[in-house]
Amino acid sequence: VATAPAVKRILETSLYVEELRRSASFYANVFGFATLVRDDRMCAMAVPGQQVLLLFVKGASATSNSSPAGLIPGHNGSGTQHLCFSISHDDLDAWTRHLIASDIELETRLDWPQGASSLYFRDPDNHSIEVGTPRLWRNDPA
Amino acid sequence: VATAPAVKRILETSLYVEELRRSASFYANVFGFATLVRDDRMCAMAVPGQQVLLLFVKGASATSNSSPAGLIPGHNGSGTQHLCFSISHDDLDAWTRHLIASDIELETRLDWPQGASSLYFRDPDNHSIEVGTPRLWRNDPA
Repeated sequence: VATAPAVKRILETSLYVEELRRSASFYANVFGFATLVRDDRMCAMAVPGQQVLLLFVKGASATSNSSPAGLIPGHNGSGTQHLCFSISHDDLDAWTRHLIASDIELETRLDWPQGASSLYFRDPDNHSIEVGTPRLWRNDPA
Repeated sequence: VATAPAVKRILETSLYVEELRRSASFYANVFGFATLVRDDRMCAMAVPGQQVLLLFVKGASATSNSSPAGLIPGHNGSGTQHLCFSISHDDLDAWTRHLIASDIELETRLDWPQGASSLYFRDPDNHSIEVGTPRLWRNDPA
């Protein structure tokens, strides 16, 4: 197999949700993500690092979806997904306090042997959301 | 609601797959991602930009999962998800040729009014995978 052309980063990741308004509010309030695009089917939110979190109403994108560029192929995720956002080590305590102040239950905190720490909590659809500090993975040393 | 502490970027995103070996080979061969960790339950692959693609065998992580740091909360996605990776505009033709050389059907190419282009194709689980160039989103101008 030929060598793959370069990838720069993840650009979009998707969560499939029951209630778009509820989920968009959650990611706006808990993470501070701004809304880029929103309609009845989906909401695109700006993630720092030139990335995008896409929230899709479950089932609403199963067939092709129209766009200004043409038909976007269908997809239809479900269940409870896992997603992790990178935070700095210096913000770990602020994140812990922020979850408490936001009435979000801290499901667990894990302190990894390699020096990273992770906070786990649930979004409104029970998706497993994590914020993690550097050194969780060897390709993210700092 | 108090202002959220900072997020730096997406650190981990997850796909739920039927056959771990098949999916890990796909992302290694098509994207060139190196494996960071792999067991029977999951495979973590390094994405450029200090990010990680997690491939989970469907159903295998539904309850808590042991780790060196303690129990990781359960999650259990299913269905066909959407994920997009950022590529440079200069690599768009190389990506088109690479998909052909890899025997991967180009489901569609979309050329967006704002100047970005996207290639859509399917992974072995029918997840909708996209590679997209800058200007797809206004928080990714170049």
